[in-house]
Amino acid sequence: MGRLILGIDPGNARCGWGLVSEDVGRLELVACGCLETPKGLGSGQRLMQVYTGIQELLATYQPSCLAMEKLFFNRNITSAMGVAEARGVVLLAAAQAGVAVAEYTPSEIKETVVGTGAAKKKEVGLAVALTFGLAKPPSPDDTADAVAVAMTHSFWSELNGLE
Amino acid sequence: MGRLILGIDPGNARCGWGLVSEDVGRLELVACGCLETPKGLGSGQRLMQVYTGIQELLATYQPSCLAMEKLFFNRNITSAMGVAEARGVVLLAAAQAGVAVAEYTPSEIKETVVGTGAAKKKEVGLAVALTFGLAKPPSPDDTADAVAVAMTHSFWSELNGLE
Repeated sequence: MGRLILGIDPGNARCGWGLVSEDVGRLELVACGCLETPKGLGSGQRLMQVYTGIQELLATYQPSCLAMEKLFFNRNITSAMGVAEARGVVLLAAAQAGVAVAEYTPSEIKETVVGTGAAKKKEVGLAVALTFGLAKPPSPDDTADAVAVAMTHSFWSELNGLE
Repeated sequence: MGRLILGIDPGNARCGWGLVSEDVGRLELVACGCLETPKGLGSGQRLMQVYTGIQELLATYQPSCLAMEKLFFNRNITSAMGVAEARGVVLLAAAQAGVAVAEYTPSEIKETVVGTGAAKKKEVGLAVALTFGLAKPPSPDDTADAVAVAMTHSFWSELNGLE
């Protein structure tokens, strides 16, 4: 197995993850999923579950890099706050594990995997499925987005000689 | 020493804290300070220092509650993002320690300690100094704000019968 990249689509309700292996330019999807936290829990408890989940992924797979979607504040400020808090515990887990973090904007990710920064969510999922020969896109969208950010890092880090 | 409230003004560059003890309605300032993280560090490293600092405060003083300023998105979106990420690791540390968290908006805090939600930063510091008989406000502002949110929780939790 080649270099491992853990892609993360952060959130405190749903945190998507996708692990991609890269070997001489060939990408493989090792595993992917979505950490979902119960609605009834307070934000501290939800963040604790996300943090523990990320710690377990880092310990199990020992990726060389974590690639995460950059947050943009748009319409929903309340959900953006929860996402930023989740980003905090993901960044913490990565720093504690000594894993480098790379960040990409949503339009950089769409441009890389679909070919246009204006691509729709559905097209990102289809591009992920096509790349890895899956019968259908990973579900929920958070999982597909996490795989897409890992693909994006694979592409750009090769160009830029990053970790 | 009575019930202990740890007030936090979250941030990844500066995270103010103030520990207030409450005994039959009488408030005492036990300790206060500001966790400052070096400018050159990446956000993950800064968050790690904030997280470790909060963990140490919780372990040392074992407060019954952590009171934190609620974040509002206003002019500076980039710094709001760093603050929200720091809030994430503070909420995580509190949840891991089993400490209840209460949150107050900036105007609730100003209204409680100064008497008007439109109070200026300087007035908050002066009100803190006056309450605890200090020669001058705690410095930097982050420290004074953290003490103010602990005072706010003391006041409101007594009214509402909270922890």
